Amino acid sequence: MSASARDFGIVCGIMPTGAHNAITDVPGVKVGHTTIREGNINTGVTAIVPHDGNMFRKKVLAASESINGFGKSAGLVQVNELGSLETPILLTNTLSTGTCVNALIKRAIAANSDIGRTTSTVNAVVGECNDGPLNDIQAMAVTEEHAYAALDTATTGAVAQGNVGAGTGMTCFGFKGGIGTSSRRIKLDGKDYHLGTLVLSNFGRKGDLTLPDGRHPTPDFPDQPEKGSIMMIMATDIPLEHRQLQRVIRRCGAGIARLGAFWGHGSGDIVIGFTTGNTIDHDQKSDLVTMQALNEDKIDQLFRAATESTQEAILNSMCAAESFTGRDGNSRKSLADWLKLNS
Amino acid sequence: MSASARDFGIVCGIMPTGAHNAITDVPGVKVGHTTIREGNINTGVTAIVPHDGNMFRKKVLAASESINGFGKSAGLVQVNELGSLETPILLTNTLSTGTCVNALIKRAIAANSDIGRTTSTVNAVVGECNDGPLNDIQAMAVTEEHAYAALDTATTGAVAQGNVGAGTGMTCFGFKGGIGTSSRRIKLDGKDYHLGTLVLSNFGRKGDLTLPDGRHPTPDFPDQPEKGSIMMIMATDIPLEHRQLQRVIRRCGAGIARLGAFWGHGSGDIVIGFTTGNTIDHDQKSDLVTMQALNEDKIDQLFRAATESTQEAILNSMCAAESFTGRDGNSRKSLADWLKLNS
Amino acid sequence: MSASARDFGIVCGIMPTGAHNAITDVPGVKVGHTTIREGNINTGVTAIVPHDGNMFRKKVLAASESINGFGKSAGLVQVNELGSLETPILLTNTLSTGTCVNALIKRAIAANSDIGRTTSTVNAVVGECNDGPLNDIQAMAVTEEHAYAALDTATTGAVAQGNVGAGTGMTCFGFKGGIGTSSRRIKLDGKDYHLGTLVLSNFGRKGDLTLPDGRHPTPDFPDQPEKGSIMMIMATDIPLEHRQLQRVIRRCGAGIARLGAFWGHGSGDIVIGFTTGNTIDHDQKSDLVTMQALNEDKIDQLFRAATESTQEAILNSMCAAESFTGRDGNSRKSLADWLKLNS
Amino acid sequence: MSASARDFGIVCGIMPTGAHNAITDVPGVKVGHTTIREGNINTGVTAIVPHDGNMFRKKVLAASESINGFGKSAGLVQVNELGSLETPILLTNTLSTGTCVNALIKRAIAANSDIGRTTSTVNAVVGECNDGPLNDIQAMAVTEEHAYAALDTATTGAVAQGNVGAGTGMTCFGFKGGIGTSSRRIKLDGKDYHLGTLVLSNFGRKGDLTLPDGRHPTPDFPDQPEKGSIMMIMATDIPLEHRQLQRVIRRCGAGIARLGAFWGHGSGDIVIGFTTGNTIDHDQKSDLVTMQALNEDKIDQLFRAATESTQEAILNSMCAAESFTGRDGNSRKSLADWLKLNS
Repeated sequence: MSASARDFGIVCGIMPTGAHNAITDVPGVKVGHTTIREGNINTGVTAIVPHDGNMFRKKVLAASESINGFGKSAGLVQVNELGSLETPILLTNTLSTGTCVNALIKRAIAANSDIGRTTSTVNAVVGECNDGPLNDIQAMAVTEEHAYAALDTATTGAVAQGNVGAGTGMTCFGFKGGIGTSSRRIKLDGKDYHLGTLVLSNFGRKGDLTLPDGRHPTPDFPDQPEKGSIMMIMATDIPLEHRQLQRVIRRCGAGIARLGAFWGHGSGDIVIGFTTGNTIDHDQKSDLVTMQALNEDKIDQLFRAATESTQEAILNSMCAAESFTGRDGNSRKSLADWLKLNS
Repeated sequence: MSASARDFGIVCGIMPTGAHNAITDVPGVKVGHTTIREGNINTGVTAIVPHDGNMFRKKVLAASESINGFGKSAGLVQVNELGSLETPILLTNTLSTGTCVNALIKRAIAANSDIGRTTSTVNAVVGECNDGPLNDIQAMAVTEEHAYAALDTATTGAVAQGNVGAGTGMTCFGFKGGIGTSSRRIKLDGKDYHLGTLVLSNFGRKGDLTLPDGRHPTPDFPDQPEKGSIMMIMATDIPLEHRQLQRVIRRCGAGIARLGAFWGHGSGDIVIGFTTGNTIDHDQKSDLVTMQALNEDKIDQLFRAATESTQEAILNSMCAAESFTGRDGNSRKSLADWLKLNS
Repeated sequence: MSASARDFGIVCGIMPTGAHNAITDVPGVKVGHTTIREGNINTGVTAIVPHDGNMFRKKVLAASESINGFGKSAGLVQVNELGSLETPILLTNTLSTGTCVNALIKRAIAANSDIGRTTSTVNAVVGECNDGPLNDIQAMAVTEEHAYAALDTATTGAVAQGNVGAGTGMTCFGFKGGIGTSSRRIKLDGKDYHLGTLVLSNFGRKGDLTLPDGRHPTPDFPDQPEKGSIMMIMATDIPLEHRQLQRVIRRCGAGIARLGAFWGHGSGDIVIGFTTGNTIDHDQKSDLVTMQALNEDKIDQLFRAATESTQEAILNSMCAAESFTGRDGNSRKSLADWLKLNS
Repeated sequence: MSASARDFGIVCGIMPTGAHNAITDVPGVKVGHTTIREGNINTGVTAIVPHDGNMFRKKVLAASESINGFGKSAGLVQVNELGSLETPILLTNTLSTGTCVNALIKRAIAANSDIGRTTSTVNAVVGECNDGPLNDIQAMAVTEEHAYAALDTATTGAVAQGNVGAGTGMTCFGFKGGIGTSSRRIKLDGKDYHLGTLVLSNFGRKGDLTLPDGRHPTPDFPDQPEKGSIMMIMATDIPLEHRQLQRVIRRCGAGIARLGAFWGHGSGDIVIGFTTGNTIDHDQKSDLVTMQALNEDKIDQLFRAATESTQEAILNSMCAAESFTGRDGNSRKSLADWLKLNS
């Protein structure tokens, strides 16, 4: 099992976590990775699957937030208009977005032969970061088969973090970045719910990282402008109206800021959020439908959970990621090593 | 009873109207006017009251859309964030917005002594157009008492249109503009619902007006750049999610465009919409609430209704408005007179 | 040469056109098509090239507007954040978006070997409509070579319209849709400028089409909900600030509405606009740069031009498109034939 | 002179400040306060004046950002559409917004007799926070004369902070809040520029405040949900395009988040930004105008400056504010006292 921030005594905020401190604490949510490491190729695909059923037939209520839109994610226009997600989400490197879109489309058609025939087409959702410093991104090495493998191996339970899947070649605050996740537990009307965040961390300038105790871990690494990104996937089983979900996922930006970043120019800082608490039946027959929403006076705890889980997911991605040497010998140190030396 | 477009055989679209062809066809919605005409003062206040109860305690789900934001409406930021309306809506001239805000605040405090004490403050919503050509707008002649009178005289049933209330001094496509309204009836799950629009019309350049039959009524009137505005209030009793309501009210812009306008630079083209089909209890105790929403596959008929009712409400405002001479002898002809001559 | 609306005496608005009444009246702008017709495959690619140079090195100021976001276009998030376009624009069918993204990326890398190495990655911009009724869209028949061919054959001057390129299998108001274009000429400070629009028309319900003279051409065609889309590409050489360009392209929506549509639920109505009047140097060295913008009091003529050219481009796409039989014998009549019969 | 964060050794970030560490380090910007303290009335008005000239004739390029829109600010719709500010900005308590709007309108008319006659009306911009716990906000005690006094006493140079002007009755993280300001100096093309922020701080829950060194100052004060707000006014003399300014002011939200807040539900977190580096001539005659903008590759230092100056302005507002007893004996402690005890 890879290290996490809590292994070093680092806790973000005050709320309790879920059992796995992971996005998979939201019931039904699964995560899978395909990691690709061959010479100068150090990249991959990470799949977030909201539920086990047919996503096109039973969409989940969704929203996206572009904190800084220097990014090439696919599918966000429709997510924002219709407030729904009808495929799993794939994360990958920037130049492999098109290929992952194709993979999601083919999977959706395989499961729904009426797509583009007697019903609408399908909106594939893919997020990305630029792993160019450690990966030969020009090779566009991700194939549709890599994408299928991430989808097919997705599981509930503990999530592999660090140098895995789409996180294989990422950089964060000058340290090694990657995949991280964290969750928070929230009680509503006497029942337990969860809100979890999974990040693909690839942002932040050397020296800006601020730990909750005020320390500034700084790697031995040349100064350079931020050219990264961070993708955040936030999931919950709390039933929300679309506008409420939009408000909640915006707070992931506060989680980034608490770490000392300011959503740098060259960073695509994008959140995709969904709730399994409200689903949309593609073949709904009745004209009006019943849904649940949150009493908005209670939303502050969701804001807090989104902020805390994002902050901690980023730190987890860095604590889990081991030092790494990639393309042309470029290397990144692990934050875990810094923390061991400075404990 | 003043004239309407249908009196001249002009029908917008294909959907059936409500009983009054007015925003008041939405059950519970009331409209009231205060008309001020004294020398160079030709202005007023129009009140749209969503329901009879305490609006602060029982808010209605609401949204606003800024089609062209050259306008000074009050309260829209919060409407968009929280998706609710907690006062009646007042319409008036541009420079009287502040006074109408004050009136709404005082009324809300009178009915809710805890405002700003043990609960939040109140968000007053006011829309406006510039009636300067026919009204001495610099006089800021509207008082809080004028605002109260519009609120206190609001009634259900037929709505006075044309040169009344906030519409007293308005200009539209070079003709006399003012207050107009129209509605459409929609059947969902076997039950009748309504969607109605009320406009304060004060936009459009001479010569651009296009009737549904392709004619271009043009008054004898000097060319001048558009410096007007149009406020649109759209109401329905169909239960909608906030995002759905936002999508519906955006279509009021299509109704304007069908008349030959293109949302001119100098025109504040703003929609405020609400549904009485979902209300928000200020003192809600439970953490989760149940609401109804629309099966979004059925939303096209609401889009059509918003478009048709806006187009027709504008024509109604012009057909109901009689020729008018205002400030410093400035005058505007009635479209009704043109239609009589050209029938 | 294919037919245009003006061949049938149909003129939209009052402004003068450019020499070709096409987006290519904007100096330097080129258009190319790849048309694919093989059995049930009836689709293609259309390329809009803003200038002859290296687009990644010399970006054009750009904006996008999502009038109704039921669409799968690629690259819009970054266009909106950075206000620039760094690849040509490709139009294609919905499920071929990923492949066209890949083609644009490979072309950009071929011309700029530093992409993803020592400089940022590249944002590929692709628009799409669903041609499923006439094309076997599940076949995903468009290849990267098809995309390259559209780019390589792009030319200035007259533009082929109707059943060409991405327009091959499109449907509009129950008639055959496709590619259409139109332009307007605008004089500023004594000099001639142009604003042109190219559309991929695939929207509108049978019976809603309204000609400027009020007629409603209706094909013999079964009723069905709108499942289409319209992509609009608007170009100008007038120097604009990003916010000004955003305001201008929003008016393309008014052009659609004048034709009787209301931006239907199932239609992705999306505009991508750019101005060659302000370019961004990827390798800019100075900290501050000088640019030109419009005196905003003059913007109404651009609003009018965007509205008129969109309305006319759509009618041109329908007048140029011949009757067509596609997948499984599905057929669409030509509006030109209706106009000949009803003149 | 009141205390500031630096008096306690607290520094936010790494950039150099301007001479006064205040928004007035931006050349020409002036600030004035009217403080009202009479029994249960503890409120006021703060004026931010971008330049000495006629603001309606020579507008400044402006933008606004609604980080959390639970607020009642006036004038933001037009600021966003037109990208300009044509009055000074007034800050006051929530229920006095209408009165301050009226004051700004009357001042603008007094200086421009053509408003609403032969030219457009005027867009008054007012920001607000709810000082109800310490002020009898229902009294609506602010008069137009109070607003005039703040405008008339505005000066360049050092800015009074803490319990002054609109800040008189504010609360922040359970401590006394109020007015605070800070600035950063930025060199571009060899010349010094400034970016400064002034805040009206009235947000944050007890216990959430996080100092740069990781400490959590917590007053002895009952827990309660956040019902506050923060208004941020950001000024610079760096020439920016509107889209660039929008991006910069969004980073004020990161400054808030660094302090441990997450833009709570009940808090109206709103930024109004302007640059004196680009002005708009109301009577511009030429069709095209020349402006300067930033090479966007250099924007990170403005993002950093906005973040740092917001964070520090908030801490300054709390360090400058002395302990205060207001309405009905409600009291708030000074953060300065906590810092003295815990140094």
